[in-house]
Amino acid sequence: MTFEEFNAKIQTQYDENNCPVTKVLNLLNGKWTTHVIYELERHQSIRFGELKKAMPSITNAMLSSTLKMLETQGIVLRKQYNEVPLRVEYSLSESGKAMLNIYYEMAVWGEKYL
Amino acid sequence: MTFEEFNAKIQTQYDENNCPVTKVLNLLNGKWTTHVIYELERHQSIRFGELKKAMPSITNAMLSSTLKMLETQGIVLRKQYNEVPLRVEYSLSESGKAMLNIYYEMAVWGEKYL
Repeated sequence: MTFEEFNAKIQTQYDENNCPVTKVLNLLNGKWTTHVIYELERHQSIRFGELKKAMPSITNAMLSSTLKMLETQGIVLRKQYNEVPLRVEYSLSESGKAMLNIYYEMAVWGEKYL
Repeated sequence: MTFEEFNAKIQTQYDENNCPVTKVLNLLNGKWTTHVIYELERHQSIRFGELKKAMPSITNAMLSSTLKMLETQGIVLRKQYNEVPLRVEYSLSESGKAMLNIYYEMAVWGEKYL
């Protein structure tokens, strides 16, 4: 794909303040954002502690703030079950699941060039 | 695309230490990396000063270190013309250009969900 084809396909005139790529890049820009989404892609629904176990290097505070940010962006759904002890599960919304297309192109690129 | 389809298509058994997505994410993880690549996608070949002009918020030091890292990764090509004054131009390698597929999926996602 050339940049001309890219521009023709996305049918958006480039505008520094209204570029969807830039917006998605900003969204994914946090240190842990992409990894948290990836772990959520791998699970239908997952509890905080399990997610933490899947990402040993992340701190509780970072995992918590990343999840909150993604929830605000509508990418992550947080469901609270009023059981004792309290159970909270995280999953991806439709937009979060659709991010797998981006990850797929990353995987294809990585397998070819790394 | 479900995660099962994703896994079937990339035909790689998931392994935390050898996951192409994680590697690409790590590669793109720098604060400016994705933006620098994007600007290079837009130009056949570009000088440092022009690149800096296209990204007003980046510092010279950050632009320089990002370009060096991308050169080490084989994504950016640095061509020096022995003129007076010295002229250096940056462009994308084949692998760098192929990143446009990743950016395309970001644009599609961004247009749909943002």
